[in-house]
Parts: sequence; C-alpha cells; structure tokens
Amino acid sequence: MDEATVIERFFWHLGAVRTDVVLGIGDDAALLRPPPGFDIAMTTDSLVEDVHFLPGSPPRSIGHRALAVNLSDLAAMGATPAWALLSLTLPAIDEAWLGDFATGFGRLARVHDVALVGGNLSRGPLNITVQLAGHVATNTALRRSGAHEGDEIWVSGTLGDATLGRERSSEAGENAPAIGLLERFEYPTPRVALGDALRGVASACIDLSDGLLADLPRLAAASHCGAALDVDRLPLSDALRGEASDGPPWQRALVGGEDYELCFTAPPAAAPTLAAIAERCAVPLARCGRMRRTAGLELRNAGAVIQFSHSTFGHFSP
Amino acid sequence: MDEATVIERFFWHLGAVRTDVVLGIGDDAALLRPPPGFDIAMTTDSLVEDVHFLPGSPPRSIGHRALAVNLSDLAAMGATPAWALLSLTLPAIDEAWLGDFATGFGRLARVHDVALVGGNLSRGPLNITVQLAGHVATNTALRRSGAHEGDEIWVSGTLGDATLGRERSSEAGENAPAIGLLERFEYPTPRVALGDALRGVASACIDLSDGLLADLPRLAAASHCGAALDVDRLPLSDALRGEASDGPPWQRALVGGEDYELCFTAPPAAAPTLAAIAERCAVPLARCGRMRRTAGLELRNAGAVIQFSHSTFGHFSP
Repeated sequence: MDEATVIERFFWHLGAVRTDVVLGIGDDAALLRPPPGFDIAMTTDSLVEDVHFLPGSPPRSIGHRALAVNLSDLAAMGATPAWALLSLTLPAIDEAWLGDFATGFGRLARVHDVALVGGNLSRGPLNITVQLAGHVATNTALRRSGAHEGDEIWVSGTLGDATLGRERSSEAGENAPAIGLLERFEYPTPRVALGDALRGVASACIDLSDGLLADLPRLAAASHCGAALDVDRLPLSDALRGEASDGPPWQRALVGGEDYELCFTAPPAAAPTLAAIAERCAVPLARCGRMRRTAGLELRNAGAVIQFSHSTFGHFSP
Repeated sequence: MDEATVIERFFWHLGAVRTDVVLGIGDDAALLRPPPGFDIAMTTDSLVEDVHFLPGSPPRSIGHRALAVNLSDLAAMGATPAWALLSLTLPAIDEAWLGDFATGFGRLARVHDVALVGGNLSRGPLNITVQLAGHVATNTALRRSGAHEGDEIWVSGTLGDATLGRERSSEAGENAPAIGLLERFEYPTPRVALGDALRGVASACIDLSDGLLADLPRLAAASHCGAALDVDRLPLSDALRGEASDGPPWQRALVGGEDYELCFTAPPAAAPTLAAIAERCAVPLARCGRMRRTAGLELRNAGAVIQFSHSTFGHFSP
C-alpha cells in the first residue's frame, strides 16, 4: 500500500468538516481562512515510542493522545482549535494499527471540531508529530506571563491519576489499575472549554504536561513571580487516594505528569466567577496556593513550609 | 543539558524577527497575526535518517533541507512563508550537531523571512519534522487542480541533479560528484520568489519532490487532464550531461526526486510573461509538454511516443 492509498483510506476526511478549510489534504499545502480580528495560535507535540508510550500501547490511545496533548496546549492559551496536520513515521504499514490510530485521532478531532488538513507519511521508527492551529480573539489569549503577586493558584480536575495509571498499566495484569486511572493516562481530556471560559478571568495559564512541580515554576518564572503551593489542597481522585503509595498521596499529584489539566492564576475577587465557570464546564476547580513576590516555589502542608525534592520529568535531564 | 537549555541555546531567536509574531517560543503555543484578506497556507514534512538522508550527513544540510522541503511546498502554492515550528527527536544531545543543524536551518529561515515560533524536543530515533505556515491573498493560491487541456507544461531550473549528487555522495570519495551536484542535493533552493510571481499566471503548480514522473501525473489527475511530456526538452545541467549513465541523461531528469523545482502549467499566451518572470527571478524556465484531454502521462522523444517504465519513488512502495 503506497502513501497515497494510506492517506486516502485512513486520513482523508478524518476529523471535522469546517467551512474555513479552503483546501484540505491533497495539494502541496492546506489553505485556511481565519476569522478577521483573531490571532492564529499554533503548537506542535510529538509522541515517541518508549518515551511517551510503551511498545504495544493501544493505537487508539496513541491517536487520541497525539491530538490531545496539542489540544491541551491550545486550551492553555484560551484558543479555539481548528486545523491539524499529522506527520506519521511508521516502521511498516499495519492496516489494523492505522485503523485504530485513526479512530482515536478522528473521534477526538470531531469532538473539538478539528479538521485534519494535511500531513505526511514516512518510513522509520514510530514517531507521531501533530501540529495544531486555532484562533483566539486579538489580545485575549491566556499566557504564562500574566500572573501577579497575590493572585490565587488554581488547578482543574484531579492530579496524579495519569502517572499512576501508566505505572500500573506496565505492571502486567497482576496489579490492574483502579477503574479510571488507566483511562486518565490513555485518554486524557484536554480542557478546551475551560480554557475558552478562562479568557478575561485568569491572569496566567499553563497546561500540566510535566507535572505541577515542573510546570508551576514555569508559569511563575514567566510572570516574574514566585508561588506558594498548599500541597494538602491539591485535588486528588478517590482512585488515587485508594492506591498504596510510599508517601502521602499529594506527592503523586505534585510530581505526576501527563494529566493535561490546566493550572492558572486569578485575583481573589475572581473566585465566584470561577465557581460559575467550574459549574458551566463541569470541571472541578481547586484553589491551592498564591503567587508571591519572592521567586521560586514554596510548598506548604497544613500551613507549614515543607521541603520536598524530586527529579522532575524531563526527557533530557540527567 | 535539559530541553529548556537546548531551546534557549540553539533555537530561541533562530530565524527572522517578524512583527506579526505576537508571541513566539516559550509559551504553550505561538500567537501569530495574519494580514487581513489573506488565507493561511500550512504544510509539514519530516526528514528521517536512512530514508531522507544518510547517517553521518552534514547536520547543516539536514537543517537546511528540513526547512527547504517545506518552503518548496509553500512556493508551489504561491504563498509567502512566515512562521515555522520544529519538532526534533534526537537520540542524544550532541551540541556540535545541534549547532550545525541550527546554522543550516537558521540561515535559510532568515533568507526567506521565516520566524521559528515554537516546537518541541524529544528523545528517540532521529526525526526532524517542520511545520511551515505562510499566507497568500484570498483566492490567488496556485493549486494542482487548475490545469486545462492545451496548457503548456513548464519546469524551473534543471532536473535530476539532486539524485545524482546523492548517489555520488554515497560512493565514498573515489567517484566524487561534479561540483554543484552534491550541493543540489544537500542545499536545495526552494523557488519561493518564482511561486509568488506565478500567481495569476500559472494555471496549476506542484513542487518536484518525488521526480517529474511521479509528480506531473499528480498535477494532471488533480486537474482531470492528461499530460504529454517531451523528454528531450527537459532542462539538464552541464554537470548531469557530463556524468556517465546507463541511459540517456533525460532519464535521470524524469525519475530523479528531491530537486525541489516547480512544475507548472500555463496557457500558451502566457509564454512572454513567463520569459519576463524567469528573467526577474533569475531562474530558467523550460517548456516541455502540453496538457491534454486523455488521462495519463504520454512521453515523447523528438516528437515520437516512447515507452518508459520505472518504479517511482515512494517510501512505502513495494
């Protein structure tokens, strides 16, 4: 099966149909018509075997996650996703794999009204790179850099579940993960509607891909602030609380990556608005800290400053 | 060296500085402000080791080509390149490699006023995926699908040089390629200015990445036409004519890929305009065939129909 046949069979018309796609798959480039008065938001992320997923992972999950991690980036900007490109490097053409991958990718794309408008196919070690573009009204995008001293720190959903699900899934059956944890790893829910609702309310925002311990300091540094985080207020799922652990369950929530929740800041006066947004988007929001003048991240447990050290997630860290 | 340090050291501010980049590298997504009245043109292409380049290829060439192949796609649309994302999967951090790669990428980006606005870095088998976006005035983009019966077929530059350069480069010294051929493979020149000039003149356009024998039928099929090609009129470099070969030199020009020249069609009356464009863009243009009603590709040599068969380039072809 050649490249053209694979594209026609599995990827043509995958995802949503959008009227702003002037020209989709099949020419040298796609042509897209952004609405006037909007900026384009553009991001890319790759999934690599053995790094972002284990060999033998369900291809439907890989397709879902390849798009979800990019949707999460746009959610963190408050942007509306619209157009995706898919670069797929495959060791061989496996039709069953491709079919399941396309199902995972396509379902999530349709949920978020994303059209697949182009891409390319190469032979080589498995690598999935998605580029996602969307739009956001001029001067309204959320950034990492807008937080101020005194702003409160919020996170959506619950934290640590994806990492735990991933760990358990690699423990081959005998220690099957609690219902929901594996789902959180394999099929993360990007918080697109929440990001949209946070424009004009949140002062800064970042998505939690590497874990709060790594990502919150990025937001703080971009905002030229520090952060004080109450670890006992981190939102934990019942499933995570119920799992055996070497330490208190908040450690997983602090360190675990790949939850694809949003972490954002807002002035204290925004709390009632945020409660309404949580209700409207059906996503719990937990207030768990405050931005402060002093640089760095201070952790508190029951009000007392604690020391905690952990090598944070980083593909090229020593 | 962690991801943030690599990005800061090698990729921050690589490429051009553009006033329409509202937010570049360093947040969850880039923010870009397209001019009103323009469509966005978007493409992506990957380079994979052992497929698109040999192990040990000069990293400066890899950086150049990773961007050039995408610039060529936008050139074929008549679009103006503007913003690039770079997804780099590397087996390890090799600072010398990264420095040379960034030099090759950055130089070409600055020539074409392309800003590098984002990307990501992963660990894994070497894979370079670039996404390039640009803009083109609404309803003026060149497409593959606009050719009509009777339109003449044109190609830019000379064909077959890149493939020959590539072959010779792998023959380890003893048979060093003629000056210029290896350059044509390692540092292809995307025809961006030509593509821009062809808007409103050419009826259809495609870039020559897989070779004329593979790419011209794509243009013809998209245009619901056939093509008659005069192989004796294909533009050949002196270097290619001077190389030993099993067959007539036009065979290499017909089959060889990776020249990144443009193949386009235009009505016969456009010939004087095209001569002026060739002069202005300093790119030779050769007229070498005609679109016809009958589907398929007919090859002619000195006016007589010939048979020629060759397995065309295709990464997943049997």
